[in-house]
Amino acid sequence: MKDLSYAFNPIGIIRSCFPEKFGIPRQPGLVKEARAILELLPPFDRPEALQGLEEFSHIWLIFVFHASLKQHWKATVRPPRLGGNRRVGVFASRSMFRPNPIGLSVVELERLDLESGTPRLHLRGVDLLDGTPVLDIKPYLPYVDAVPTAHSAWADEAPAPVLQVIFSAAAEQQWQEIQTHYPELKQLIGQVLALDPRPAYYDSVTPRKKFGTRLLDFDVAWEVEGDIATVLAITSVMPGEG
Amino acid sequence: MKDLSYAFNPIGIIRSCFPEKFGIPRQPGLVKEARAILELLPPFDRPEALQGLEEFSHIWLIFVFHASLKQHWKATVRPPRLGGNRRVGVFASRSMFRPNPIGLSVVELERLDLESGTPRLHLRGVDLLDGTPVLDIKPYLPYVDAVPTAHSAWADEAPAPVLQVIFSAAAEQQWQEIQTHYPELKQLIGQVLALDPRPAYYDSVTPRKKFGTRLLDFDVAWEVEGDIATVLAITSVMPGEG
Repeated sequence: MKDLSYAFNPIGIIRSCFPEKFGIPRQPGLVKEARAILELLPPFDRPEALQGLEEFSHIWLIFVFHASLKQHWKATVRPPRLGGNRRVGVFASRSMFRPNPIGLSVVELERLDLESGTPRLHLRGVDLLDGTPVLDIKPYLPYVDAVPTAHSAWADEAPAPVLQVIFSAAAEQQWQEIQTHYPELKQLIGQVLALDPRPAYYDSVTPRKKFGTRLLDFDVAWEVEGDIATVLAITSVMPGEG
Repeated sequence: MKDLSYAFNPIGIIRSCFPEKFGIPRQPGLVKEARAILELLPPFDRPEALQGLEEFSHIWLIFVFHASLKQHWKATVRPPRLGGNRRVGVFASRSMFRPNPIGLSVVELERLDLESGTPRLHLRGVDLLDGTPVLDIKPYLPYVDAVPTAHSAWADEAPAPVLQVIFSAAAEQQWQEIQTHYPELKQLIGQVLALDPRPAYYDSVTPRKKFGTRLLDFDVAWEVEGDIATVLAITSVMPGEG
């Protein structure tokens, strides 16, 4: 049994608003504006395989933490929800560094696009890195998956937004220029930064510091002072643009 | 990308009250008496890897539908909840015959046994076949996993028990003899049969018919007439016993 292994092929690939890890919410559903498209891959790209899925508001994605494949798992991890100080067993965490780097997220199914050749699922509330390989899609069944009696000693409630997000005059002007093509970007920035994506070891004694987060096709520069995050600049990373 | 595949080793094996498929509830949580033990396998059998998991009432298991590996997936399936008549896409179902035969179940974590060499998780409300290889354990996080706004056009509510279960005099006597060693067996039989495990194509016009369901170390013989299931006999399948 020890040497037994199971091989799986991705059934689809995620195209998300998160081109890099920094800034991704730590769980799905926290950032409503976080959107992604799941594109099915052959031979799984048959519209019939999705028939009836539009009747469900939410779906499970089982996926591979593909950006963490090279890092070896450890028996214990430090969850950010515990301030990054307390260690818990890897199986008592949702860490991406696991014996089998398999992820599980429930996301909102906004719509199914079966008209354009490749079947596409339009998703909201994702916590998925761009390029994530997806192994399975399952409908979310409230009577099974939403357990009313479930409880835990910690992480029982959603983390509240902790930072107030404001835009500098320069960032506001940059936003004016791009909002036609990226109407959801400002809200996305606000929701992502409000959750304070800084690593857990940045505590209140850390001085004012600048950060960069890539969202959609933009580098977002921001800084934190106290509990205020200020967006400094929104710069396109598309070739040939400012 | 097409030929990419990911290989995973089981981190543990399920020892459950369901030695065969027939009788297994169609979702977890429906049969509270359905118990299993998850035994961790080396090199994943380190007690530290489970540290803190006892603080969670429920856990996710991501597992392999190992008894369905040889059957090829089809783009559409007939879910039993729809009477076995209507076809839906395989990704709109929780069928075990899927492109990647990966299962997902939330189960109650009754207790952790870290004292006996091999770490063991004692589970309730399972829908897992004995011998199921488990790929991952994750804590159930109510604020993430229990989505209050989720809904679906069908399968929104738990299936109610549909059969009344009674024991014949012979079965009652057999139960008296084994109850010391299997105190939960009678309740387990009652809860399993009440959900009517017969295939969806057995409808009301099917005449009275006998069935056999294996639970724990016993063959349970039963028959149905109308909406009453009668347990006829409980026979040990252990070698050298009656």
